[in-house]
Amino acid sequence: MGDPVRVALLGCGTVGAEVARAMLDAGSAAALAEAAGATLELVGVAVAREGVPRDGLSPSLVTTDASALVATAPDVVVELIGGLGEVEGLVRQALEARCSVVTANKALLAARLRELSELAASREVDLLYEAAVAGAIPIVRVLRDSLASEPIQRVLGIVNGTTNFLLTTMAREGCELDEALATATALGLAERDPSADLDGHDAAQKAAILASLAFRAEVTDADVPRVGIAKVTLEDVDAARRMGHVVRLLAVAERVGVDVSVRVHPAMVPASHPLAAVDGASNAVFVEGDRLGPLMLEGRGAGGPPTATAVLGDLAVAARHRATGVVGRAPTIAAAARLVPPGEVRSAFYLAIRVIDRPGVLAAVAQVFGDRGVSIRSMEQTGLGADARLVFLTHEAAAADLDATVADLGRLDAVAEVGAVLDVVGGEGP
Amino acid sequence: MGDPVRVALLGCGTVGAEVARAMLDAGSAAALAEAAGATLELVGVAVAREGVPRDGLSPSLVTTDASALVATAPDVVVELIGGLGEVEGLVRQALEARCSVVTANKALLAARLRELSELAASREVDLLYEAAVAGAIPIVRVLRDSLASEPIQRVLGIVNGTTNFLLTTMAREGCELDEALATATALGLAERDPSADLDGHDAAQKAAILASLAFRAEVTDADVPRVGIAKVTLEDVDAARRMGHVVRLLAVAERVGVDVSVRVHPAMVPASHPLAAVDGASNAVFVEGDRLGPLMLEGRGAGGPPTATAVLGDLAVAARHRATGVVGRAPTIAAAARLVPPGEVRSAFYLAIRVIDRPGVLAAVAQVFGDRGVSIRSMEQTGLGADARLVFLTHEAAAADLDATVADLGRLDAVAEVGAVLDVVGGEGP
Repeated sequence: MGDPVRVALLGCGTVGAEVARAMLDAGSAAALAEAAGATLELVGVAVAREGVPRDGLSPSLVTTDASALVATAPDVVVELIGGLGEVEGLVRQALEARCSVVTANKALLAARLRELSELAASREVDLLYEAAVAGAIPIVRVLRDSLASEPIQRVLGIVNGTTNFLLTTMAREGCELDEALATATALGLAERDPSADLDGHDAAQKAAILASLAFRAEVTDADVPRVGIAKVTLEDVDAARRMGHVVRLLAVAERVGVDVSVRVHPAMVPASHPLAAVDGASNAVFVEGDRLGPLMLEGRGAGGPPTATAVLGDLAVAARHRATGVVGRAPTIAAAARLVPPGEVRSAFYLAIRVIDRPGVLAAVAQVFGDRGVSIRSMEQTGLGADARLVFLTHEAAAADLDATVADLGRLDAVAEVGAVLDVVGGEGP
Repeated sequence: MGDPVRVALLGCGTVGAEVARAMLDAGSAAALAEAAGATLELVGVAVAREGVPRDGLSPSLVTTDASALVATAPDVVVELIGGLGEVEGLVRQALEARCSVVTANKALLAARLRELSELAASREVDLLYEAAVAGAIPIVRVLRDSLASEPIQRVLGIVNGTTNFLLTTMAREGCELDEALATATALGLAERDPSADLDGHDAAQKAAILASLAFRAEVTDADVPRVGIAKVTLEDVDAARRMGHVVRLLAVAERVGVDVSVRVHPAMVPASHPLAAVDGASNAVFVEGDRLGPLMLEGRGAGGPPTATAVLGDLAVAARHRATGVVGRAPTIAAAARLVPPGEVRSAFYLAIRVIDRPGVLAAVAQVFGDRGVSIRSMEQTGLGADARLVFLTHEAAAADLDATVADLGRLDAVAEVGAVLDVVGGEGP
C-alpha cells in the first residue's frame, strides 16, 4: 500500500465518536484499510466545545477550528455536524479544495444536493452521503449504482424511525399518540423537541434526496408537501386494522406520466405489503421499477453504530478512489424535476369525522363528497349520539378535491371535527 | 462523451434478450449511457444455435462462435450462458484479454470466485456478478462496497425462489410438497428437472458466493453441506405454525468464533422474523453486523427483467470504469475460509418421528436423546396407534449429536420413520 489517505472528521457526537473509534481500533482499522486498499490516517477531529473528554482520542487531534482543519486539505472530509448554516460553508470549502466529502447531513443535501453534486463533479472528487437517508440501509448506493439505469416508478420510504415507533406502539399497546410519545422519549427514541419528526419535516428532507436520486432531477425539501402524524388517533389505527391495513408515515416519490410527485403523509398500508411489517424504530425503503419489480430494504435508521456503518462504507469508497487516483463521479442531477402540483396527485383516501348523530346528517355529509366529485367506496359508523364517528374510504380522487371536501365538511353544523386524512396505498409486495 | 464502450453478449436466453433489448431501445440506451457516462455499443451476441429469430437483433450481430467474439477484445463481456465447462474458458479468455466481465453464472462463481477475482485484479479489469445471487436484489454490491469494512456476523438468505414458493404454497393451500410442485410447474416456477432446487444445490452455490464476499475468504459450493426440502411434509409446516414459526429453506453463512459456518437447510423461522414474511417466489437476504445491526433486502430472485436489472447495473459500472480509465478492483478473497466442521455447528432443532404408539415408546425415544446429550425443550404427540407422531424441539446441540440421535432413533423397533430435521432460527428482526 502507498501513502495513507488523510481523513478529517467534522463533528464528534454519537456517530462521529463511533467513526473515530473504528478508525483508531486496530482490528477495524485493518478491515477499513483492506476495504479501501490503503491505510487511513485520522488527521483531526473538529468539535464544538473543547475540554470534553473523548475516549481514545488524542487531544492533539481535537480542534474547535473546523475551517482550519479543512484548510489542511485532507484527502477526505467526513462531515457529521449536520444542519445548514456554517456547515454548508465547510462542505463547499472542502470540495473547492478538492477534498472528497462524506456526509450524513440530510438538511444540507435536501436543500443543495444538485449544487454540491456539480461542485464535486467539477473538482473531480467524491460526494458520498449514504448515512443521510435511512441510517444503515444502503439505499443511496443502490439508487446511485445498482439502479442507475432502471426506470424507477415509485419509492416509498419509512424513513423516520421515531414516528414509525409511535404508530406501531399505538397499534400494539392500544394507546394514543401522546402516551406513545412519552414511551419513545423515555426510551431515547424521540428528541426533546420531536416536532421535526412529528410534522414530517425530517421525512421530507429524506424524500427530497431519494427523489433527486431516483429520478435524477432536483427536488428540494421545500418542494415536498408534508402532513405529519399529529392528527392520527388510536381510533384511526384501530379502523385501519379492521380494514386489513396499518398506518405508516410514508415518504413517497413517484413518477406520474412524465412528471414526478414527491410528498410525505400518513398512509394506510395493506397488511400484506412489505412495509406493513416494518415495526418499531426500523426504517425501510420500497422501490418499484419497470424491470426490477418490487425491491425492499429494511434496517436500522438511526443510532451511532448503524449510521457509522453507512459512513464507513462511504469512507472506504472515497479512500479507495483517492488511493488509486480515481476521479469521483457524482450522479448528474438535472436542474429541476417537473413536479405534479400537490392538488393534482390522485389517491384513494381514508377520512374520519366526528358528527352529531341526528337524522339527515349522513345525507348532508354524502352530499358534500358528491358535490366535490369524490366517490365513497365504504363508510363505517362507530359510536352514537354526540360521540358518533364516521369513517370513509374513497375511490381514487384528486388531492385538491379531497381537500375541498374536508373544508366543506368542516363547515357543516353537524360535523364536530374532521380528523386525520390518510392516503390509501394500493398494490402488493414482492 | 468519448468513444463508445464496446459490449459483447454471450448467451441470449430470457435474461440476455432483455439485456440486448435495453441496449438497443433508444430510451433505455440513453438511461444506460447516462448511468455509464458513455454510450454503449453492442458489438456481438453469441448464441448456441443459429436461425432462431431474435426480436430486434440484427442478424449481423449474432454469431455461434463465442470465442471468436471474445477474441475481438470488446471492453466488456457479458456472460449469460451459465454453467461450468466451456464457459469458464470464455470468461478466462475475456479476463486475460483485459475485457471486464459481467456475469450471472452462479455455478462458475461458486467454484472459482477467488481465482477469477485474482485474474481480474491482475489484469486490472472488473469482474461483476450482481445477477448471480438473488436476481434483482443488490446484495453483491452491498456486501462488496457498503459493508466492505463491516464486521458481519451472519447472512441468512432465501435465495431459491422455487423452494420458497413450494413451502409457502404448502402453508397457504394446506397441500403436500408434490401438489405444490405441480402448481409451481404449471406456473413455470419450477424447472422440468427441479432437483437442483429441491436438494439445495442451487442455494448452496449462492451460499458459497455470499459467504466468500461476507467473510472475504474462499468458500466453494463443494464446502457447503446441504439438506433439501424433500422430506418436509405438510405436518411439519402445520407443526411449525402451531409453534409460531414458518418453514423456509435457508442459505446460512455465519461467523463462529474465528471460523465460519456455511450451510443450506430447511429451518423453522419465527413468525416475527423478517424472513418469515417472504412469500412465494421472492428472494431475501438478511445480514447481521456488529455495527450495522440487522439489514434485510427482499425482491425478485429470478425472471428475465429483474435479473437484467442486476446485469445492467453492473454493465453501467463496468462501462463507466472503462470510459474513465478506472482500474477495476475485485474484492480480495483469502485462500480458504476456516470452516467449522458441519458436525460441530450448534443449533436448536425440530425433529418429527412416526412411532408405534405403545407403552414405553416415549421413554425409549427420550433415552436416545439423553444418551446423545441432546436436551429436549418440548414434545408434542399427534395421532394415535400406528399413526402416532412425535414432534420434538431440542435445546441447542451439536449437529453431529443430533445426527447420531436420528440414526439411533431409526434403529428403534417402535420408530416407523424419522422425518425432516429443521434447524430452529433464533433472534429477532430489525
